[in-house]
Amino acid sequence: MSQKQSVILVTNDDGVTAPGLKALIEAVRGLGRIIVVAPDSPQSGMGHAITIANPLRLVKVDEFEGIEAYQCSGTPADCVKLAKDKLLKEPADLCVSGINHGSNSSINVIYSGTMSAAVEASIEGIPAIGFSLLDHNFHADFSAASHYAKIISQQVLQYGLPEATLLNVNIPRLSKEHIKGIKVCRQARARWEEDYDKRKDPRGEEYYWLKGKFIVDDKGQDTDEWALQNGYVSVVPTQFDMTAHHAIPYINNNWKLDAKTR
Amino acid sequence: MSQKQSVILVTNDDGVTAPGLKALIEAVRGLGRIIVVAPDSPQSGMGHAITIANPLRLVKVDEFEGIEAYQCSGTPADCVKLAKDKLLKEPADLCVSGINHGSNSSINVIYSGTMSAAVEASIEGIPAIGFSLLDHNFHADFSAASHYAKIISQQVLQYGLPEATLLNVNIPRLSKEHIKGIKVCRQARARWEEDYDKRKDPRGEEYYWLKGKFIVDDKGQDTDEWALQNGYVSVVPTQFDMTAHHAIPYINNNWKLDAKTR
Repeated sequence: MSQKQSVILVTNDDGVTAPGLKALIEAVRGLGRIIVVAPDSPQSGMGHAITIANPLRLVKVDEFEGIEAYQCSGTPADCVKLAKDKLLKEPADLCVSGINHGSNSSINVIYSGTMSAAVEASIEGIPAIGFSLLDHNFHADFSAASHYAKIISQQVLQYGLPEATLLNVNIPRLSKEHIKGIKVCRQARARWEEDYDKRKDPRGEEYYWLKGKFIVDDKGQDTDEWALQNGYVSVVPTQFDMTAHHAIPYINNNWKLDAKTR
Repeated sequence: MSQKQSVILVTNDDGVTAPGLKALIEAVRGLGRIIVVAPDSPQSGMGHAITIANPLRLVKVDEFEGIEAYQCSGTPADCVKLAKDKLLKEPADLCVSGINHGSNSSINVIYSGTMSAAVEASIEGIPAIGFSLLDHNFHADFSAASHYAKIISQQVLQYGLPEATLLNVNIPRLSKEHIKGIKVCRQARARWEEDYDKRKDPRGEEYYWLKGKFIVDDKGQDTDEWALQNGYVSVVPTQFDMTAHHAIPYINNNWKLDAKTR
């Protein structure tokens, strides 16, 4: 009797034509039956947006040799939801998202469309991984990233993940020979300090355009930022329970509420 | 010498004309100097989207008597970023977002524009609270929600919040007299089970429209879902460090990597 083949859902946020998606498909080719559902246009910075008030289109495409693939008019999270409801006949064994053109380390997990697809899959009970390469270039070299995407996907297929946990994987912009290995990390404390450009349009009306500087307030050697700066692939186990459990006793002990509101 | 007045940033995701925003402004009126920056159109389900590839407009409006207010063409997170960079001369002491027309309890924190504004403020170091009423109606009765929004805002202004922690507050659809009080809770484990409607457009082309059923797989009496079903206002302390810390040793102990990749 043959072993059941794994089902792998592939998506991204840079859209169906992005080279990073092709690199990810090649990384997982051979690990199972692949189905691709990716946005029909770039969706970077979409966070965990879902489409409620508008219809969605889903169109079969013939982009990837021998692979069942669709483009979707929605966000990365929409792609996962639609795939699960309408295309997957059985639950997927793995969802991989990416490979993103650009970093999703530390606080970027919050803004990332790539990670939102993986988070959505994980909420739905599918083991999930988001992959991002620290290179925004459309023609970036994805060979090292693809190599590590394969290794990490194999580990997750074989050993699973703890319940309600997914992975945020970032790959430094280095050749395979220069990458030192894989480090399992925590998300570094960091933030974007925004500095909007104030400009005038051709009619003389003001508008603003986002610029920003990335500030890492965290020197910990157990962080993703440290790993990436030191030549490692960072793997941050990520959860969607956002409860700050340690703050529950703080509030209960400090707030002064009367008997009625307590 | 007079005490320095608190600065309170007010935003939402239902847009500048939503009655819930007006109710929130009235709740915090008198607690400090108020500045309102809200989206110029509804942004529900936007998650933590930010606008990178497009310009933003910011227009002063005269909607709220005696209050400095602006409408912004971006998402809730954009409103907070723009306010911080271009409008606030000093750091705000509090950011309140809402009152949302509809629940943002449990997993909805991930999809919520209301909460994304509060998360963005918290990342920027501003104590922040998202408020949501369990009533989608445009003409919902916000009087109980407004009452509790005032009490909770006062507590946060007076006693602060632990670092990198914000609050997700949901108010049941009950009159003030029937609400039993405030419960500090954890986020319940829950998910939306999607069921897309497949339809045909006037040209005979297929499209899909999201429907869903909310599934709570968590019977804990320490959850927000329990609190809301039992007549309490739920307060979930929320964090944006999404690291699943407990999963780090799991991965380190279970994965089999060779010497080079470890």
